[in-house]
Amino acid sequence: MTDSEHKNPLDFQSIMFALQNYWARQGCLIWQPYYSQVGAGTMNPATFLRVLGPEPWKVAYVEPSVRPDDGRYGINPNRLQMHYQFQVILKPDPGNPQELYLDSLRAIGIDPHQHDIRFVEDNWESPALSAWGLGWEVWLDGQEITQFTYFQQSGGMVLDVPAVEITYGLERIAMALQRVRHFKDIRWNAERTCGDVNQVGEREHSTYYFEVADVPRLRDMFNLFESEANLALERNLVLPAYDYVIKCSHTFNILDTRGAVGFTERQALFGKMRDLSRRVAEAYLAQRTEMGFPWLKAVESAPETAQPMLPELKTGTADLLLEIGTEELPTADLAAALAQLETGAQALLADARLEHGEVRIQGTPRRLALMVRDLQTQQPDRVLEVKGPPAARAFDAQGKPTKAAEGFAKSRGLDVSQLRVSETEGGSYVVAEDSEKGQSAAALLAGRLPELCESLRFTKGMRWNQTGKVFSRPVRWMAAMLDGEVIPFEFAGLHSGCQTRGLRFAEQPTCQLNGLQDYLAYMDAQGIVLDPEKRKAQVWEQAQALAAKVGGKLADDPDLLEEVTNLVERPTAMLGTFEQGYLESLPAEVLIGVMRKHQRYFPVLDQDRNLTQHFIIVRNGDARFEDVVVDGNLQVIHARFADAEFFIREDKQKPLADFIPRLAQLTFQKDLGSMLEKTRRVQSLTTGILNKLGVPADARRAIDRTAELCKADLATAMVIEMTELQGVMGKFYARLSGEPEAVAQGIFEHYLPRNAEDRLPEGEPGLLVGIADRLDSLAGLFAMGLAPTGNKDPFALRRTALGLAQLLTGKNLDFDLEWGLKLAGEALPVPFDSQTLKAALEFVTGRLRGLLLERGYRYDVVDAVLKAQAANPAKAGRFARSLGAWTAREDWGSILPAYSRCARITRDIKETFLVDENALVEAEERRLLASVRAAQARLEGSPDLDAALEAVRQMVPEINGFFDKVLVMAEDEKLRKSRLGLLQSIVALVQPLADLSALEGF
Amino acid sequence: MTDSEHKNPLDFQSIMFALQNYWARQGCLIWQPYYSQVGAGTMNPATFLRVLGPEPWKVAYVEPSVRPDDGRYGINPNRLQMHYQFQVILKPDPGNPQELYLDSLRAIGIDPHQHDIRFVEDNWESPALSAWGLGWEVWLDGQEITQFTYFQQSGGMVLDVPAVEITYGLERIAMALQRVRHFKDIRWNAERTCGDVNQVGEREHSTYYFEVADVPRLRDMFNLFESEANLALERNLVLPAYDYVIKCSHTFNILDTRGAVGFTERQALFGKMRDLSRRVAEAYLAQRTEMGFPWLKAVESAPETAQPMLPELKTGTADLLLEIGTEELPTADLAAALAQLETGAQALLADARLEHGEVRIQGTPRRLALMVRDLQTQQPDRVLEVKGPPAARAFDAQGKPTKAAEGFAKSRGLDVSQLRVSETEGGSYVVAEDSEKGQSAAALLAGRLPELCESLRFTKGMRWNQTGKVFSRPVRWMAAMLDGEVIPFEFAGLHSGCQTRGLRFAEQPTCQLNGLQDYLAYMDAQGIVLDPEKRKAQVWEQAQALAAKVGGKLADDPDLLEEVTNLVERPTAMLGTFEQGYLESLPAEVLIGVMRKHQRYFPVLDQDRNLTQHFIIVRNGDARFEDVVVDGNLQVIHARFADAEFFIREDKQKPLADFIPRLAQLTFQKDLGSMLEKTRRVQSLTTGILNKLGVPADARRAIDRTAELCKADLATAMVIEMTELQGVMGKFYARLSGEPEAVAQGIFEHYLPRNAEDRLPEGEPGLLVGIADRLDSLAGLFAMGLAPTGNKDPFALRRTALGLAQLLTGKNLDFDLEWGLKLAGEALPVPFDSQTLKAALEFVTGRLRGLLLERGYRYDVVDAVLKAQAANPAKAGRFARSLGAWTAREDWGSILPAYSRCARITRDIKETFLVDENALVEAEERRLLASVRAAQARLEGSPDLDAALEAVRQMVPEINGFFDKVLVMAEDEKLRKSRLGLLQSIVALVQPLADLSALEGF
Repeated sequence: MTDSEHKNPLDFQSIMFALQNYWARQGCLIWQPYYSQVGAGTMNPATFLRVLGPEPWKVAYVEPSVRPDDGRYGINPNRLQMHYQFQVILKPDPGNPQELYLDSLRAIGIDPHQHDIRFVEDNWESPALSAWGLGWEVWLDGQEITQFTYFQQSGGMVLDVPAVEITYGLERIAMALQRVRHFKDIRWNAERTCGDVNQVGEREHSTYYFEVADVPRLRDMFNLFESEANLALERNLVLPAYDYVIKCSHTFNILDTRGAVGFTERQALFGKMRDLSRRVAEAYLAQRTEMGFPWLKAVESAPETAQPMLPELKTGTADLLLEIGTEELPTADLAAALAQLETGAQALLADARLEHGEVRIQGTPRRLALMVRDLQTQQPDRVLEVKGPPAARAFDAQGKPTKAAEGFAKSRGLDVSQLRVSETEGGSYVVAEDSEKGQSAAALLAGRLPELCESLRFTKGMRWNQTGKVFSRPVRWMAAMLDGEVIPFEFAGLHSGCQTRGLRFAEQPTCQLNGLQDYLAYMDAQGIVLDPEKRKAQVWEQAQALAAKVGGKLADDPDLLEEVTNLVERPTAMLGTFEQGYLESLPAEVLIGVMRKHQRYFPVLDQDRNLTQHFIIVRNGDARFEDVVVDGNLQVIHARFADAEFFIREDKQKPLADFIPRLAQLTFQKDLGSMLEKTRRVQSLTTGILNKLGVPADARRAIDRTAELCKADLATAMVIEMTELQGVMGKFYARLSGEPEAVAQGIFEHYLPRNAEDRLPEGEPGLLVGIADRLDSLAGLFAMGLAPTGNKDPFALRRTALGLAQLLTGKNLDFDLEWGLKLAGEALPVPFDSQTLKAALEFVTGRLRGLLLERGYRYDVVDAVLKAQAANPAKAGRFARSLGAWTAREDWGSILPAYSRCARITRDIKETFLVDENALVEAEERRLLASVRAAQARLEGSPDLDAALEAVRQMVPEINGFFDKVLVMAEDEKLRKSRLGLLQSIVALVQPLADLSALEGF
Repeated sequence: MTDSEHKNPLDFQSIMFALQNYWARQGCLIWQPYYSQVGAGTMNPATFLRVLGPEPWKVAYVEPSVRPDDGRYGINPNRLQMHYQFQVILKPDPGNPQELYLDSLRAIGIDPHQHDIRFVEDNWESPALSAWGLGWEVWLDGQEITQFTYFQQSGGMVLDVPAVEITYGLERIAMALQRVRHFKDIRWNAERTCGDVNQVGEREHSTYYFEVADVPRLRDMFNLFESEANLALERNLVLPAYDYVIKCSHTFNILDTRGAVGFTERQALFGKMRDLSRRVAEAYLAQRTEMGFPWLKAVESAPETAQPMLPELKTGTADLLLEIGTEELPTADLAAALAQLETGAQALLADARLEHGEVRIQGTPRRLALMVRDLQTQQPDRVLEVKGPPAARAFDAQGKPTKAAEGFAKSRGLDVSQLRVSETEGGSYVVAEDSEKGQSAAALLAGRLPELCESLRFTKGMRWNQTGKVFSRPVRWMAAMLDGEVIPFEFAGLHSGCQTRGLRFAEQPTCQLNGLQDYLAYMDAQGIVLDPEKRKAQVWEQAQALAAKVGGKLADDPDLLEEVTNLVERPTAMLGTFEQGYLESLPAEVLIGVMRKHQRYFPVLDQDRNLTQHFIIVRNGDARFEDVVVDGNLQVIHARFADAEFFIREDKQKPLADFIPRLAQLTFQKDLGSMLEKTRRVQSLTTGILNKLGVPADARRAIDRTAELCKADLATAMVIEMTELQGVMGKFYARLSGEPEAVAQGIFEHYLPRNAEDRLPEGEPGLLVGIADRLDSLAGLFAMGLAPTGNKDPFALRRTALGLAQLLTGKNLDFDLEWGLKLAGEALPVPFDSQTLKAALEFVTGRLRGLLLERGYRYDVVDAVLKAQAANPAKAGRFARSLGAWTAREDWGSILPAYSRCARITRDIKETFLVDENALVEAEERRLLASVRAAQARLEGSPDLDAALEAVRQMVPEINGFFDKVLVMAEDEKLRKSRLGLLQSIVALVQPLADLSALEGF
């Protein structure tokens, strides 16, 4: 921060005062913290209950928030078992909550101009409260300082009026403001620091929560609290009941921190809390309903704004601009919205019969823009035929119009003489010609643009005001213009206009537009890069240039690049450098994980692709106050790394194997049990596979140990914190625990491949345990009916199945998936039937098909192979390669027809006939039989598609000769059957290996 | 309040802001409410723990304070199960905390000039926290708005540095400020009231606490919390342990509100909480000690103030003024201090040999003044003899001085020739004459006045700063002058000076004095009435005048008058009038009790001595803003009466007898059990007495029922709230419950007489149950070693014993106290031996002696009677009257000597001799014997002192004749024994009735 900003940074208590005063000025009631331990201000009844129902409510309060699991003994810079939140609820949405929030930052001395402030998607959910909302975490120079949520549900009830919830993290704000690096150095007032008054508490409570609290007693407390909550609910005592729900929640949190909550118990306890929360919410709402919602003032009807006039444009062309201005869209939603807007706009233009020039759809997190050059301002007129009664009824025998014809003519405003008869497929009808006057583009668009806005769909949509309209995030302005004229319409309570907004903290933050050209000029002036592709290129270039400046380079990382691109409107890359020491104290994967996942930094690698201490920050805005922004980000990364060090230090205190029992506390899936149970199944499945594959005992040791340890790291603090480090930490801790290197590698590798492009395991432990793990997941989750549908794949089964296919084909390991899935199914704690087995197998086959297609095999080749080899992906892969080669041969044009003649004539015959050699009469058929017999002998037991096809190829002349000379369907039954049997024998050479009937040209 | 004050009264949240800001400006750290239910801000660790040890600490915070027992379902105007406190801790005492506090009232818009603001003694104690302090409740126009305490102990530990604790009751302040009559109408912010946000909570929580909470589950919770506290303490985790202590306390409060805590359990639970609190406090202090008290800055040594020069006064006389300026003294302490000051000052003056004129000792709650006219400014010189060695050693045989004489002379700075010999009782000694120069009065007083200040002793003294000096309340200034000159000295860190202070909110609140005359003039100008007697007279006159104005009069009430007098410096009486309705809805005793006890009002009676709706308020200050002050007081009395109505409504819901089981929750005394057990004992004791007295069965019914019900009302809400209504409410509820009138009266009357002046029961039930009750208390409490000692009489045993004496003498009921106490002793749950019986009996005798002396009997008469009749007060009373009359007779001068001759000669003879008539030789002795025989016959069996004395009177001539003629101690043994026996017979007529040897002139 600048010197001026920093001359007299507020002390901690003054930050609270300033926020209280600011929000009081905005009409908020200033409330007090709750008098029982809560994890967040959301749990205070002033939020949890008051957001329910239609009544307005504006409130703000400090909430000391207790999260036992976040205890760090007072060591971590900003992770605390008790931190101070400042909570604001605005209900209904005032229309400008982000602006109000940013003003509140000014009120505490943060000048937004001098910082990189961003709204980064972060949705919120509380299983205990059965509540959720959509929103962001607000970043101040990379530091999360606030959670900003549009509350959608509470106590299991959809909110009548969505409420805006703003939750400030006061320590983090104070640290940034006072430029201190540790919470203990925050000046609380002139004399005392946060450390003075709270550090001992952090140490003591952390000790209590992690080491001391008595588990059976806490369980007893939970039960007592639950019983009292139920008792109070029986008497409809909302607040007493809710108080005990809060106490249940805190007690649960302690139990959890003590590592005492097994997966079954967790389900049960969450279920109880959810149920209680829901009943409390219902009782509250019933109470307010009974009271007649006393705070519900008659909604002031907005002053009737005169419907704006449609503009009149000269006939000709004009440039169309539609800008949907939003609060920051989640990165994925931005991409999705642009794609839908493209389709929707094209359809709209076509349907409107408006000719136009170039159409561009572009956008940033805060805007979706549709820009059309040279749009016809006037729709051409056209003539439409309107169908009347059948001609037979419209005219009598004399050809004179009947009443029906007259009526029809009158209804269209025509004279009966103006009707004509038209022949249609359905017969002969009277028609009237309506000449339709083309509408003005403005009128058309005024009708269609709101529909276009409304047509956009998002994975998670939200409501924010009482129009009930759903969007990814609230829409706050709409610019809609044809050249300099506004196209008037309304969407979600907003009226379109000619104003746009620039960067949040720009000197000229809004602009009146006089058309598309203006718009583009203003965007340019603001440095906003509307085109995502261009923006992405800029990000990448800037980042690479900075990396190069310190002699480094960047790893390709398209996902991160995409995300970073969609987090900014005006990207400016900056170089950050963390302390060298972390390179030694923390595994590179951890450092990279933290930088990528939490902070969206690009890690800089050296020329040997080793991690350096540099990283690239991409801020939103220009390069001013770079020092401030970089400094803030450094502070964040320092705290993050310190936390990782804390986790690893904790984890290292016992060998990896000791974490296995704690897997009992991690849920794999509700009905399939804990991760411990899963591990046990993977172990036994691995044994089954080893037996089947006949792996010798000495090779088994490492594999068995890998199976045992494969999930242990999930229970380590580091992986609990950053799940994507699973396997990585396992390897790291296994080495530290003295496990054999093969085991350490196996733990890491059993997750490989993690995606379609990823590498495969090098060792057998990773390969075989990986297969067992995936078989268990597939069998189990299919058994529970959790197969992916549409967009939903919560357990990433697509990736699991694809991984199996990648492993077996990539390692060319012949393996019977049907057998494997069956074995896995039998070990499950739930029923597993043949139906499920089939579905699971087919699902893997689907991924395998995709994989083979991606390798470039023709779809018919793939189909031919899979029809025969679905259960053995390795073989399917080999055969696809073979068959692909055969189909590419010049002589394939003679081989396939010969074979297909044999196959087609026999394919509907259910019975397999034996060839009675003596019954055969023609030389051609005897010759063919001899060839077949020879081939059979050659191929005996060898499932080699190449050899089989070669045999067929060699038989082509005999086959052709046979068909030229021999009538297969002879009168004589015996003869006929022998001839058919002969052909069946030929087909039988290939059919078990590949179903050539799937091939084109068959 | 005035209009100006009221134009924009702060809303509720702004009051909190204003207090936060004000105290932040005073250097307080602004803290947050505690995150578990606490009964008061004191329980927040920011108070409970931080007041321990030597470190400085200034803090302020809001504390939503939960007191289940205060729940009133949201109905009462200002009694709430949850109210908002604002808590301030100043450690060490800043020297002007009252002034800081009053400034804070200005900061929230209360102009102290416009109100009657008083500091009324109210000490604070928390048994659960083992903490206590001395201080006041602050009254704003009669309303208690703040508790102001000098914390002396916390967690059982005496505080190194006493801390000032200021606790604001925010609702009450807001009600006064916003002029609303009910908490629900307090405007919280512009839109919402306290009722909006909290009234439902009041109703629901009251219901839960009073009706719903599950007692066994709460007991379980308590035990779990206690166990966790212990567990945390084992690990020295101060804050986690303390959190559970707080939870224990809240759980206990709920149990108590549910009426579930019996007396034994109460003892046990309090013991546990006290023990935990103490251990937490110790652990905290150990922790801070180990940390080296990091907040303890080197105490800045006060700049050395040059020792002020003693004034030089012309020889002659000057007026002395000593004013000890204090914070408001408790009313009893004021009286005690004035008495001690009188004694001390007189002794000082005498000892200093300073002649002086009139000495006046006067004072108000804020000042103790010693005023001496015409004090000699110079002590006269004097000559002192100093004793040396014995003359025999000082001079040799030649009369020449020895070494001893020379040495002595030298040590006195004299020549040996200046010694002289002086004859003393112990012999002849050498003496030296020292002529002592008289000191100036200023010098003498500078030395003696601080000793005088320090010599004052109080029932409960307190420390307030680091000098460790003890006083009733802090001393804040001292004016000490001889005429216009300051007598310099230091006491409790203060230097004496020439400044005094007037009324707190006077226009000229301080004054530089130029001597006593100035002082008196300034006091007059301020309207301060220094003389307590004069002030008392003014209060009484004003109050009577106002009562007369509404046609009423006042009951004599010396205690209240005394208290009111000592609560003000400048009394101004005002007339208040409450709503007529209360006269009907509440018993007069309740109304009077509330007015007297809580508010110190004089109730106005009509000419028939019935209560009217008027009352007299005596404020401190002049009559300005009378409307504001009266209005505030009316609001208070309204809330108080409403609360009484609430209690009575609750109590009336069940018959009085149903309260008996709840007596099990009330403690009589730790080892003597609950009030229920006491009641059971009183019942059986009553039965014993009835048997002994031979009361017929039909008279017993009402008495037995009275014994059963006598304590039931102690368990009613109204009596729990106002203990002094015991008996009154019992009568009231007994009538409502349909008990016989005799029982209702008996319940009330068994407490009679309540003091020395009180009336006696009219009915037998009250009389006999009252005796039984008192016998039980005496026997039990003496058995427990709880006999009164010095000032200590916590169980009011003096009153109990006196009551017994009053009852038995007043009702002239012959009753053997020894028998009664023995019976009572046998029923106790603890050992009761003859030693105890004797002590108890003697104790009652002591009260009886006082009672008889008070009736005007001569002490020797009383002694004579009591030596014989201690165990039967009724008889003692009768005999005292008789004996008194006899001793007043003219012929007593001849009767007593005659009797005493008989008595004296026989009194040392242990044996009783039979008279052998035949052995008698003289006529006189035969005559005397005849008279004795006649008298014996007359008096047979009648314990009538009058008759016995009359018999003696008639024998006087014979007795005198006997002694004239007869030698009692005859040589002949038989004769001697008969003569002695004769005299013994005469003594035996009187001796069993009264021991005349105790009389003067015996």
